[in-house]
Amino acid sequence: MPAAIMGPDFARSVFIVVDMQNDFLHKDGSVGNRAREHPEAAIDFPFLMGTIPHVQRLAEAFRAANRPVVYVAHVLKPDYSDAAFPYWRVGINPGEGNHSHCVEGTWGAQIVDELKPQQGEHLVVKKGFGGFANTQLDTVLRNMAVNTCVVAGVTTCVCVSNTIRGGVEHNYRMVIAEDGVAEVNRQTHAGELATMQRLFADVMSVDDIAARLRGTGS
Amino acid sequence: MPAAIMGPDFARSVFIVVDMQNDFLHKDGSVGNRAREHPEAAIDFPFLMGTIPHVQRLAEAFRAANRPVVYVAHVLKPDYSDAAFPYWRVGINPGEGNHSHCVEGTWGAQIVDELKPQQGEHLVVKKGFGGFANTQLDTVLRNMAVNTCVVAGVTTCVCVSNTIRGGVEHNYRMVIAEDGVAEVNRQTHAGELATMQRLFADVMSVDDIAARLRGTGS
Amino acid sequence: MPAAIMGPDFARSVFIVVDMQNDFLHKDGSVGNRAREHPEAAIDFPFLMGTIPHVQRLAEAFRAANRPVVYVAHVLKPDYSDAAFPYWRVGINPGEGNHSHCVEGTWGAQIVDELKPQQGEHLVVKKGFGGFANTQLDTVLRNMAVNTCVVAGVTTCVCVSNTIRGGVEHNYRMVIAEDGVAEVNRQTHAGELATMQRLFADVMSVDDIAARLRGTGS
Amino acid sequence: MPAAIMGPDFARSVFIVVDMQNDFLHKDGSVGNRAREHPEAAIDFPFLMGTIPHVQRLAEAFRAANRPVVYVAHVLKPDYSDAAFPYWRVGINPGEGNHSHCVEGTWGAQIVDELKPQQGEHLVVKKGFGGFANTQLDTVLRNMAVNTCVVAGVTTCVCVSNTIRGGVEHNYRMVIAEDGVAEVNRQTHAGELATMQRLFADVMSVDDIAARLRGTGS
Repeated sequence: MPAAIMGPDFARSVFIVVDMQNDFLHKDGSVGNRAREHPEAAIDFPFLMGTIPHVQRLAEAFRAANRPVVYVAHVLKPDYSDAAFPYWRVGINPGEGNHSHCVEGTWGAQIVDELKPQQGEHLVVKKGFGGFANTQLDTVLRNMAVNTCVVAGVTTCVCVSNTIRGGVEHNYRMVIAEDGVAEVNRQTHAGELATMQRLFADVMSVDDIAARLRGTGS
Repeated sequence: MPAAIMGPDFARSVFIVVDMQNDFLHKDGSVGNRAREHPEAAIDFPFLMGTIPHVQRLAEAFRAANRPVVYVAHVLKPDYSDAAFPYWRVGINPGEGNHSHCVEGTWGAQIVDELKPQQGEHLVVKKGFGGFANTQLDTVLRNMAVNTCVVAGVTTCVCVSNTIRGGVEHNYRMVIAEDGVAEVNRQTHAGELATMQRLFADVMSVDDIAARLRGTGS
Repeated sequence: MPAAIMGPDFARSVFIVVDMQNDFLHKDGSVGNRAREHPEAAIDFPFLMGTIPHVQRLAEAFRAANRPVVYVAHVLKPDYSDAAFPYWRVGINPGEGNHSHCVEGTWGAQIVDELKPQQGEHLVVKKGFGGFANTQLDTVLRNMAVNTCVVAGVTTCVCVSNTIRGGVEHNYRMVIAEDGVAEVNRQTHAGELATMQRLFADVMSVDDIAARLRGTGS
Repeated sequence: MPAAIMGPDFARSVFIVVDMQNDFLHKDGSVGNRAREHPEAAIDFPFLMGTIPHVQRLAEAFRAANRPVVYVAHVLKPDYSDAAFPYWRVGINPGEGNHSHCVEGTWGAQIVDELKPQQGEHLVVKKGFGGFANTQLDTVLRNMAVNTCVVAGVTTCVCVSNTIRGGVEHNYRMVIAEDGVAEVNRQTHAGELATMQRLFADVMSVDDIAARLRGTGS
């Protein structure tokens, strides 16, 4: 028999918030520092920061509908001995220089103040880009009996995309909140959303998702 | 300790050929048919077909260097009951209409004639987009003691990208053969290669990879 | 929230038949040969063969209740280059000697005649011991929307046990058909069932499972 | 090509210490309490506790040989919403009664004093039984470039066994330290070791493993 459910089921959905950490989103975090110190890298930092209020609004909509919110965050040992990604490609040299990125126990690795997890909400630590890769995320979601994941956070082409792709591999219906995700540049962001929409996920605005959640009446 | 090896090691590499099947690349396969029948979809079919000679050349380079070639292919039951992707998004309706896509036992699911696997080469069947997702690919590669995967095939943003992302999750060094991959449109293709180069993989030409293989002297 | 469902739900169950292949169960298969040629190994071959009618009866009960039956089987390349287990421990030396074990394309790798899969039933090939390890089994089950797996086959401590343990890791409720499983000796078999019952799975007779299936009224 | 390496390679080995936590091993932990309060359960608590000095000695041998030690531990939310095992089978009812088991932030979930991880050693948190299941363990080991895992801890048939079986699925050579593992009863313990030795792992004494480590001269 083919898959019974085609498309999202908001009454059985979870909101997955990806990497909304100081090191990605605060002006004094590692990406903020890099954007300022390396203008030639052309990092669109305001675009990244701009996701915060949208993600906040969507988290509130899930809580209001009594649907769960789960955070995933990139948190690594100081020496990156647990890293599941080629960090040297982005110029990270663990233990050298004056900036750390997403290191366990640092302020930079924490979720931004505006989006702190509430009592009872899960925070799943990941060592690579995707929320489902070598983490307990699938376990937590199966225990919740959800079948649909709404995803927002940063960045569109990397950790958000890997989380969407991983969700598909685990048989979830995936939705991406298009105004709740951002990238270091707008061009690859737009391309990724086009690919997502074509084959991986419904691409919807925060407002449209919130409306669908209210419609579930749960 | 941080990862000892940063960057590819061609002397311990494997060539992974992704989805070079009639349904993706032959004019009478399902994508070829769709490109012809739905011009409004603007599928750049010549771009896809154009990968064949490059992939062929790279496969020969691996064989000449005594390095392994592994094929992955998308092969599904006629009713898509084993599909690990939202096939309804691309208009596939199993068992209806006059075209099938990558169905077990059909000509469309076979590797194109120009690239037939040679005696002893593995063909790994996958049910979703990524070569590493729920398949024996990692097992086969660990048995070969490889640490570096060179990837080519179709399509750049979907099955090639998922295979690169999956390889990163399994701690391989990844290389993408830039003239050996293609997408249904050139814009998302270019964006994906930019993302790959930034964070996931070395992006190199077939000729440069072949030169590095000769340099391994194996 | 804790897991909502504690214990099996037969109305949403699947029957997983593990390694009921000629090489494990037919007198002329590899284990049958070994039992005969190496009496000092004390392989209880009649115990293994004795599972066939029980598995047959349970498969019929699932079909009668319109619940799915899925086969998993151990199938390897002649050179064992895709093997995900230390085959050298059991004296397998690929390509040497006059017996092969579970090799692709051979009679020994086929499901025994008494239990041939019916039209539309899945046969999932695995390269190691567990049905869930690096295979599409979870995908097939998620598409079926099952939450409970009933497992039978051979051998209790190895492929059956790994499949039960893998199902637990994937959040399924697991049931083991105690008269539908067997081992090369009865002592480790009994110990494994005790461990299974304590922590992993309900241990039930074929008749009791069949009665519960009739009770689902599906 | 078949697997190049058959059997353990101690010069590239890691020591994995499984679940040596107060709740399993301290007389005031949850298993200790249960053993005392439920004599009818016949839990062989001295057998469990007896592993501590052996595991300690083996950890010291690894450190002396400059080989890594990695801890895995079972750590769960108070409501067990992240549990990847059927905890109701063992009578755990999260949030009720006066005992908790392996709950995040409690003394019971901590590694026993005798075996505290040293500076720089990894502690991998798992939500189910196996160290490799949905954790970063494979990532950490791949980064270390190890190919052989020596395993000790508790309990033999459950978390130790699942970790051995998971290591096999990830293509590691596995060794079990027979005097460094224990179970709640000695009979199933002995059966599991027999199964391990037959098909999964070398079963060796702590002294023999230590001697082999000294022989690596690293």
